[in-house]
Amino acid sequence: MESPAHSPRAIGGKTAKIGITIGDPSGIGPEIVAKALTSLPAEQLARIVIFGEEFILDRQWDVQNTRPIQRPSTVLGGNLSPADLKPGVPNAATARAQVAYLEAALAAAKAGQIAGLATAPISKTQAMQAGFKFPGHTEFLCDGLGASAVAMMFAGPRLNVVLATVHEALATLPAVLTVESVRSAILLAANAMLEDFGFATPRIGVLGLNPHAGEEGRFGDEEARIIEPAIAAAREELSEAVVLEGPLVPDAAFRMPYDCFVAMYHDQGLIPVKLIDFDEAVNTTLGLPIVRTSPDHGVAYDIAGQGIARATSMRAAIALAFRLVDQRETRRAIVS
Amino acid sequence: MESPAHSPRAIGGKTAKIGITIGDPSGIGPEIVAKALTSLPAEQLARIVIFGEEFILDRQWDVQNTRPIQRPSTVLGGNLSPADLKPGVPNAATARAQVAYLEAALAAAKAGQIAGLATAPISKTQAMQAGFKFPGHTEFLCDGLGASAVAMMFAGPRLNVVLATVHEALATLPAVLTVESVRSAILLAANAMLEDFGFATPRIGVLGLNPHAGEEGRFGDEEARIIEPAIAAAREELSEAVVLEGPLVPDAAFRMPYDCFVAMYHDQGLIPVKLIDFDEAVNTTLGLPIVRTSPDHGVAYDIAGQGIARATSMRAAIALAFRLVDQRETRRAIVS
Repeated sequence: MESPAHSPRAIGGKTAKIGITIGDPSGIGPEIVAKALTSLPAEQLARIVIFGEEFILDRQWDVQNTRPIQRPSTVLGGNLSPADLKPGVPNAATARAQVAYLEAALAAAKAGQIAGLATAPISKTQAMQAGFKFPGHTEFLCDGLGASAVAMMFAGPRLNVVLATVHEALATLPAVLTVESVRSAILLAANAMLEDFGFATPRIGVLGLNPHAGEEGRFGDEEARIIEPAIAAAREELSEAVVLEGPLVPDAAFRMPYDCFVAMYHDQGLIPVKLIDFDEAVNTTLGLPIVRTSPDHGVAYDIAGQGIARATSMRAAIALAFRLVDQRETRRAIVS
Repeated sequence: MESPAHSPRAIGGKTAKIGITIGDPSGIGPEIVAKALTSLPAEQLARIVIFGEEFILDRQWDVQNTRPIQRPSTVLGGNLSPADLKPGVPNAATARAQVAYLEAALAAAKAGQIAGLATAPISKTQAMQAGFKFPGHTEFLCDGLGASAVAMMFAGPRLNVVLATVHEALATLPAVLTVESVRSAILLAANAMLEDFGFATPRIGVLGLNPHAGEEGRFGDEEARIIEPAIAAAREELSEAVVLEGPLVPDAAFRMPYDCFVAMYHDQGLIPVKLIDFDEAVNTTLGLPIVRTSPDHGVAYDIAGQGIARATSMRAAIALAFRLVDQRETRRAIVS
């Protein structure tokens, strides 16, 4: 079920490697990675580097009774032994392993060995017990790769949404939403659309914060005080090829034909994405020197080892990593 | 395009009348009401009372070159003369007329002459200039009919959503969201599902306020402090036939099979409704002694008089008014 953009012909001479971390080995990560790999063409499998032990995927393929048409290369990051692994039951060894996969992937990214990384879910609680000092993948990669500003984006077949703020209580939003945070999200969104998604003249819609975008200040002033100045500041830094509009009335915006929306808060962006793009939406981190994508779900211990985990989102995360890496490579080839 | 519930056979012996106010006569109200009436069966037309001058709808039918198969009865509330009416250009006479229609409809409701009311859009600015003292229809009817607690609901083919708060700046939400306001919205939602929508065992999903419903207090405490106590308080007052669950993770909730959602704020409820139910969603006011519905758009002066206004939402508002009035009548007949 490859779309034309991912077919062997379209890939052409693309060679940059894509890393995949298998995530918490006691969660559904190994299962969804194993499933996703079986549907990839040989040309893409040849470009994949797995961070995780070979026996873990082999076990999955044995159970699933199918294999990818070519074995991807593997970096053995976790030192996990078969006796340590019981699906749905994390332990100190699996906790350490998921962190080790990420550290190996980071080292590969720094060494220029991978241009993109698709990450299966980790357990934050488990990872922290193994000494992981970050709230999640994004902060770990941001720190390790020295990125100055990053933003979370959800890319689906129908909607692309970049979040100006992420895991903030609603009550704290008015304090954390600043001209700078909104401007930064707009610039990251516009540059991603131009450079990674290949839009020549991307249309970016910036949402308001309040109902009816404040209705001229009747229900809040953040539109005039924060969002409009942020749009004006971003516009000065962007080429005229970028169409930038807002603040849009939030409840009407998502039916409008923008290539990408900048949402002011988590649920403003994720309610529409999850409603109409469901598990086809992929989380991608903008602003890193490498492409990074991930499925939008957790380790799901409750169903690990049952063979019933859906690989749709992991498959979409890998497909998007290829698409963005290849787009960057094409663009670099044209520019240089 | 009548659904089975609205077919003449299903209506059976139903007789209660439905009022329709034509709204601001210089807006698109007359056009969408005229269009909606042409698609109604004679049995429903016989039960409709128009609040507005006959010449206004006649003008529309002349232009549209079609008429309803039976003329609905009319209450002449506005004293508007043909010379006073120019589409898209409100004046003092049209401002007064839209208020007069509403006052006539309120009098009819108080006298028991109508059991439901579908209201075409008014201009709040114009109405206020004519001495209207309320922010909108809802407050006017709530005051005039002596309702103690009302809530705004959006009913669409795919989603039903009741709002616990409406036109509030996001920054003020944590202050206006109380155990009492959430409890009241839940009770109104549950009773509407039982009594007006005809669900024997309605499933009501109550949303959280914060991302991931606060993730156990990590991003806000309103779930534990306000929403859970409100759900517990509402449950005590509801029959066991009502399934009541929450606080739900907002970005995952709207794909779950609830008959009605209780949203904590305007855009949390309206972003999903407008995205997937678009102009089929109808605004209905819960808690009034009569049924009240309205299309979810404004007077649209910019397109008034051009014949291009879509009547989908007005048509849906009238259909829902019939459905809810008939359901109440059926229920009353069974109970008594």
